[in-house]
Amino acid sequence: MDKTDKKEDLKKANAQEQSGTECGAVCGAESYNFNVIGHYKGDLSQKFGVPRQSRLVDIPGEIHFSPEYWDRSAFKGLEQISHLWLIWVFSENKKSEKFQPTVRPPRLAGDRRIGVWASRSPNRPNQIGMSPVELRGFRWDKEQGPILEISGADLVDGTPILDIKPYIKYVDSIPEAESGFASDKPQAKLEVTWDKSVEDVFEENELDQLYSILAQDPRPAYQDDPERVYGMEFKGKNVKFQVEAGVAEITAVEEL
Amino acid sequence: MDKTDKKEDLKKANAQEQSGTECGAVCGAESYNFNVIGHYKGDLSQKFGVPRQSRLVDIPGEIHFSPEYWDRSAFKGLEQISHLWLIWVFSENKKSEKFQPTVRPPRLAGDRRIGVWASRSPNRPNQIGMSPVELRGFRWDKEQGPILEISGADLVDGTPILDIKPYIKYVDSIPEAESGFASDKPQAKLEVTWDKSVEDVFEENELDQLYSILAQDPRPAYQDDPERVYGMEFKGKNVKFQVEAGVAEITAVEEL
Repeated sequence: MDKTDKKEDLKKANAQEQSGTECGAVCGAESYNFNVIGHYKGDLSQKFGVPRQSRLVDIPGEIHFSPEYWDRSAFKGLEQISHLWLIWVFSENKKSEKFQPTVRPPRLAGDRRIGVWASRSPNRPNQIGMSPVELRGFRWDKEQGPILEISGADLVDGTPILDIKPYIKYVDSIPEAESGFASDKPQAKLEVTWDKSVEDVFEENELDQLYSILAQDPRPAYQDDPERVYGMEFKGKNVKFQVEAGVAEITAVEEL
Repeated sequence: MDKTDKKEDLKKANAQEQSGTECGAVCGAESYNFNVIGHYKGDLSQKFGVPRQSRLVDIPGEIHFSPEYWDRSAFKGLEQISHLWLIWVFSENKKSEKFQPTVRPPRLAGDRRIGVWASRSPNRPNQIGMSPVELRGFRWDKEQGPILEISGADLVDGTPILDIKPYIKYVDSIPEAESGFASDKPQAKLEVTWDKSVEDVFEENELDQLYSILAQDPRPAYQDDPERVYGMEFKGKNVKFQVEAGVAEITAVEEL
């Protein structure tokens, strides 16, 4: 018992050293500090509209790296990799001071609580997210350095990235897994229509993306008010829409 | 451009606030601090012998929680979940001061370098690991609080856990993913034999675990010396073995 205790103490003492931060008396509990390696760049600049899981909507995005990681050799071998894990920070989410043991997932219509460890909700003790995304390409920008071109992220523009790992099929893919109420992919719920004028603002592929995003019904689970006008920031514009009888209609697109 | 810059500055300013740590001038870069929620308890107390990926070896283990997370409701819904993600810290790995852009994965016999973003190596800027494991059970211990019983972890005893998330099949399972040299599960490489006396020390199920662990060949990729005696800490004992012509033989088991 004594030996184990000593080991634990040593580990706690090491934790601060390894984290590279001298936080002194403030840290308190065993904790680790991680530097952001880069950021997600995408077309949705607010949480509203961002897909609720990765790979639900085929939207393009990019990973830009902080200058200290501008090293070409760090990407060697990615040409053989089809999917990546992003480890990131729920930076848009306000962290609660106290441990919140339960959450209300939108898939349960927001009216049933489940335990936080049985949920992927951002409301959790450590605001770490993980998302598998498709790797589409790589380029080197003279001013912005290395850029990973990806698809299917459930991230808001500017999300801080902590790590990128290759998806390894024999480890990560568990087709026989049982995930309870969240086992099956939610089907697109809404039809999407728009005024002809919207086609002057967006290209065809952008309209396809808009369609896919709105078809997932980004409204909070407990809202169903046909009078309500929603605004979603997409590609630097405010896309206004209303939802009635299973149809989302884009009524206007405004400059921000 | 100005607007984006402002947003970035704001995010950087928020980062420290959200992390809950006042590290003052020492933090420097945009960084986040995470408290450990619990620890992995397993039979391998040193890195040597720990499977190189999760789910390679069916070894049992447990997650014990720090007292502030001793809340039964946080586990509600896990009865429907077959697999969990563990997000953890490579605490046994010494973090290098400078960014190391390439690594030498054991699967490539340790003699070829690939980029760190194409590898699951622990030698990476942020020492965050992620492992899918099987959830076997849950119990509440009077003294140790809630305990998750799991199987298949690639973790050393005492590994700090940062988060636990349910495996969600439609998000996480990508059977069509291509992972280059690491696409297929490595086959067991060694036969394992032992002296009759070893059977007096370990139970049958423990011997089964020993067999599975040694069959994966825990030796460093570049070592093949039949004279060399290896020692692996397993269940609080030092298991000594040698490897010759594809056979690992357990020659002795010593008290630690």
